[in-house]
Amino acid sequence: MSGQVIALSGGIGGAKLALGLDRVLAPGELTIIANTGDDFRHLGLHISPDIDTLLYTLAGLDDPVKGWGRRDETWTFTRALAELGGEAWFQLGDGDLAIHVERTRRLAAGETLSQVTEALRRRLGIGARIVPMSDEPVATRVHTDEGWLDFQHYFVRRRCEPRVVGLDFAGAGEARMAPEVAAAFADPALRAVILCPSNPYLSVDPILAVPGMRAALAGCAAPVIAVSPIIAGQAVKGPTAKMMAELGLEPSAETVARHYEGLIDAFVVDEADAGLAIAGMQIAATPTLMRSLADKQRLARFVLGLAARLA
Amino acid sequence: MSGQVIALSGGIGGAKLALGLDRVLAPGELTIIANTGDDFRHLGLHISPDIDTLLYTLAGLDDPVKGWGRRDETWTFTRALAELGGEAWFQLGDGDLAIHVERTRRLAAGETLSQVTEALRRRLGIGARIVPMSDEPVATRVHTDEGWLDFQHYFVRRRCEPRVVGLDFAGAGEARMAPEVAAAFADPALRAVILCPSNPYLSVDPILAVPGMRAALAGCAAPVIAVSPIIAGQAVKGPTAKMMAELGLEPSAETVARHYEGLIDAFVVDEADAGLAIAGMQIAATPTLMRSLADKQRLARFVLGLAARLA
Repeated sequence: MSGQVIALSGGIGGAKLALGLDRVLAPGELTIIANTGDDFRHLGLHISPDIDTLLYTLAGLDDPVKGWGRRDETWTFTRALAELGGEAWFQLGDGDLAIHVERTRRLAAGETLSQVTEALRRRLGIGARIVPMSDEPVATRVHTDEGWLDFQHYFVRRRCEPRVVGLDFAGAGEARMAPEVAAAFADPALRAVILCPSNPYLSVDPILAVPGMRAALAGCAAPVIAVSPIIAGQAVKGPTAKMMAELGLEPSAETVARHYEGLIDAFVVDEADAGLAIAGMQIAATPTLMRSLADKQRLARFVLGLAARLA
Repeated sequence: MSGQVIALSGGIGGAKLALGLDRVLAPGELTIIANTGDDFRHLGLHISPDIDTLLYTLAGLDDPVKGWGRRDETWTFTRALAELGGEAWFQLGDGDLAIHVERTRRLAAGETLSQVTEALRRRLGIGARIVPMSDEPVATRVHTDEGWLDFQHYFVRRRCEPRVVGLDFAGAGEARMAPEVAAAFADPALRAVILCPSNPYLSVDPILAVPGMRAALAGCAAPVIAVSPIIAGQAVKGPTAKMMAELGLEPSAETVARHYEGLIDAFVVDEADAGLAIAGMQIAATPTLMRSLADKQRLARFVLGLAARLA
């Protein structure tokens, strides 16, 4: 079977399934809508962490050991910047810097974030389209027991240590879906919309906060399927479970499923959570931990198969 | 003896004598006026090659083998940028990038180039003040048989290969001396002004093109002494001799001395050029090739001794 597939993704966790989808789908079939709520300006550079993670992962440039950033990375810049008294809390790899400098230069020359991202993914030989949720700025801010923190300050500088009270996506109300996002949802060949196993609150909610996005998901004829980022009450990576507990939510696949209730047709959980049942929602269980490329491709095929059955 | 000393300097050649002067003078006695005609924006970054060479050289961060840039440098950024299709003809070392990013950030925040440079030299523990000739942009442009080229395009991209017909310092007419430049010339404790052995046409002339600079040299009570960058008809480094020939000038210490006629009280040549005599100009010969730090300090002491005798 063929047709178009949309995946909504944040960084690391989502990019794993995005890579699996990219490998099992034909070139041009996959459109990945990337969270840009984590985007920020640092040292005068426009940094798009989730777009970069997707680009590096799909181009095979990601660091499989560290789990973030580029492989074969060096750190001379950050060391030299610290020596000069510059702001060096955000570790910028020397190779990674290239994408920030090139993006910043192109944006300053008048290109949209969509155009820059499209040029980069083509240059890197990536088959999937990678599209920012919006070309306008949306900034995830974390309300903590230490007050409001910009996302990267919470995530990197404070290592997710402050207790989370709430979240806010500044600018989301005024943002418009990137043109390619609207086009992807309007495509009659659309056969599946997949919410990747990213943090629902930090990575998927900012995408859903862009006006029109929820309506696009609700209105599309293709099945909408989410994959749980929580396995047996644990997050595979990152602060999802900790943050859920702080927000007074039980860290479980069920909580995530209920978070997406009304928006998705089906929910994929790990075999460890196979017992889950929610009225009006198809639940499918399969191994969801993605270690190898084979794991990623297998899960991608599973989700696409589920979509085909639901169609 | 004590008192203030001003040195006019470009990059590599001038920085060698500047380092010698810095080491033999007491902290706070030396003000180096740096050429900024080579400054340019590249990839959205403000690059000041001669200021950086001075900072690296005086901080002991310079690469003694390569002769430019930083020691212990890595090149991951430039490789990654080429991979992304970015403009990678200007080799930016990973550590070197830090100074461009930090400078660009501070300038965008409203600091002057003088303020940024002062902060950097203090941070790097440099005793000498390093002052741009002007806080306003002056751009050296090279008129060649291929047309007008921006300096870095001529120097780096085209490796000084085009034949030079003329030079122009765009913006020099409107530029004002940086405040610390004027202050240094007005200091009653000024005991010497030294034109370092930099390229007279590419590195010293842009400084002299800033309105008021020639008058400041002519009007100051302290002796003005130039050191020849040409030894026995050869440039120690760089395109000086080639360019002189292309401009129809004999590449010789005498040609340089005559270029500075009326502006300097004395001219220091290498022993190889000891025979030189010019009416109305004191000529002093000494070994001027600076390989070791000892060479640099010895030449610095020689020039300062000459200034003391002329005072």
